Amino acid sequence: MNEIKIFSPATVANVACGFDVLGFCLDSVGDEMLIRKIDKKGIFITKVEGFDLPYETELNVAGVSALAMYEAAKPDCGFEIEIYKKIKPGSGIGSSAASAVGSVFGMNELLGRPYNKTQLTEFAIKGEALASKCEHADNLAPAMFGGFTLVKSMSPLEILEIPSPDDLYATIIHPQIEIKTSEARAILPKEVALQNAITQWANFGSLIHALHTSDFELIQRSLNDVIVEPFRSQLIPHYHDVKNEVLKAGALGAGISGSGPSIFSLSKGLKTAMNVADAMKNVYAKTHIDFDIHITKINTEGIKIL
Amino acid sequence: MNEIKIFSPATVANVACGFDVLGFCLDSVGDEMLIRKIDKKGIFITKVEGFDLPYETELNVAGVSALAMYEAAKPDCGFEIEIYKKIKPGSGIGSSAASAVGSVFGMNELLGRPYNKTQLTEFAIKGEALASKCEHADNLAPAMFGGFTLVKSMSPLEILEIPSPDDLYATIIHPQIEIKTSEARAILPKEVALQNAITQWANFGSLIHALHTSDFELIQRSLNDVIVEPFRSQLIPHYHDVKNEVLKAGALGAGISGSGPSIFSLSKGLKTAMNVADAMKNVYAKTHIDFDIHITKINTEGIKIL
Repeated sequence: MNEIKIFSPATVANVACGFDVLGFCLDSVGDEMLIRKIDKKGIFITKVEGFDLPYETELNVAGVSALAMYEAAKPDCGFEIEIYKKIKPGSGIGSSAASAVGSVFGMNELLGRPYNKTQLTEFAIKGEALASKCEHADNLAPAMFGGFTLVKSMSPLEILEIPSPDDLYATIIHPQIEIKTSEARAILPKEVALQNAITQWANFGSLIHALHTSDFELIQRSLNDVIVEPFRSQLIPHYHDVKNEVLKAGALGAGISGSGPSIFSLSKGLKTAMNVADAMKNVYAKTHIDFDIHITKINTEGIKIL
Repeated sequence: MNEIKIFSPATVANVACGFDVLGFCLDSVGDEMLIRKIDKKGIFITKVEGFDLPYETELNVAGVSALAMYEAAKPDCGFEIEIYKKIKPGSGIGSSAASAVGSVFGMNELLGRPYNKTQLTEFAIKGEALASKCEHADNLAPAMFGGFTLVKSMSPLEILEIPSPDDLYATIIHPQIEIKTSEARAILPKEVALQNAITQWANFGSLIHALHTSDFELIQRSLNDVIVEPFRSQLIPHYHDVKNEVLKAGALGAGISGSGPSIFSLSKGLKTAMNVADAMKNVYAKTHIDFDIHITKINTEGIKIL
């Protein structure tokens, strides 16, 4: 096997009370990538379609994570990477993470799987850091492992796979505004009230318990973010309208996807997830802001060979 | 049935990363109480053995929680309460909580169980507040439900029962020093670094996952407290020596029990729990501080009829 085509999924990071550590994987939204083993040594980005991304390996997220793995594995070959980008960069659903995991996952398959998924995520962190200027894995982990993942620690990297109920769907709206990651980060306080932190970990522990026990009502009561949402929601016009309307439409909860501007919502069942999509649409249709909407099952498999 | 004898267990609150929300129940340490239905209306503390506690109903923790339930239930009878106190007040293993849940649990049995355990805990909160000057349920919940409990919220009161692996043992040392609850509370900061809060909820979510999956190694890696321990450990002489020694002896982790001064440790298996007890003893035997040690299985049943 000298060439492999893969699907690298979009992801939602933070998930309300799980700021900086929790994420989940989407099913019907993701990039396609083709990785080809070649005789010539090195990593080469040979095609980029969908969005305008750099061809220079060192400036391309998929290239940088590929290089990190390449330098560790020192294989007697090189790789060409074709990127068919479908996740909009800057949308807040793990566009750079999909690129970062895609290249290393594909290369690993072509080399006979010398690395496990956690090791591959370590390489992907280097690519993700190019895009977000800091090392984090809350989108990489769910893209690599699928389902819900908890990044317990970054050093050493430890990723926990949290089970989730069947019949759990996400609805995501991407209002087409730009939020600079630097701005989303700068708006966060360095310190938080101990009482709010306690509320957050009570909710987070409850959410982990609810996912284990498939308790949808408890998922609903746990999806609250008292730490980050009050700040970052200011950067997303109509955020609170969307949240109110999706809850009325039957969603289990909603929050900011990653650092935004996308807003995610979780629902029990496809029908509710579609009603939630309508509720989201109705809010933004009254504005001058363009938007995309995704309705998707939780993807429990993660990145995969096509 | 006009009289009932109950065992009301000691408990450990906070459990390192679960500050203010998590607790677990002890098996071989607890009070005995006798509750008697009488014709004369009212709540009467008729016997207190073991420690010197007030007989005036309104000044006695068990009396105050009993009154809260009595006023709600308005039964056509009264109750006498005998307390055989075995948990030392002020030791940090839920002495007041045991009293508070004991009276209402016993009365509820004698009245034919008009209330569920969450409702009983609501009444017990009133008694606990007499002792600790604030309403909290992190010792009451494990005493009432057994096992590990997560107090998700106080208003409305919501208690989650978290499963735990068989073969999990606690070792607790009570160094006989006094820590005033007010001092333990005053030493805590009002604000904490966001980065530390994130570390705490990553550990807390991991601990909930580890309890669900009976993953002892993950329990070990999750039992860290970066928020409260740095402050409250200053109030307990030799705290860090104890912690270092119990970890060397094979404990999964250790932390301050409640607001101290007791130090708890969790171990896999009775043998390790006994080695941990020796390690604790060795530290305090070199000091002039008296101490008690308890070795106990996790009590999954909670308060019970004897």
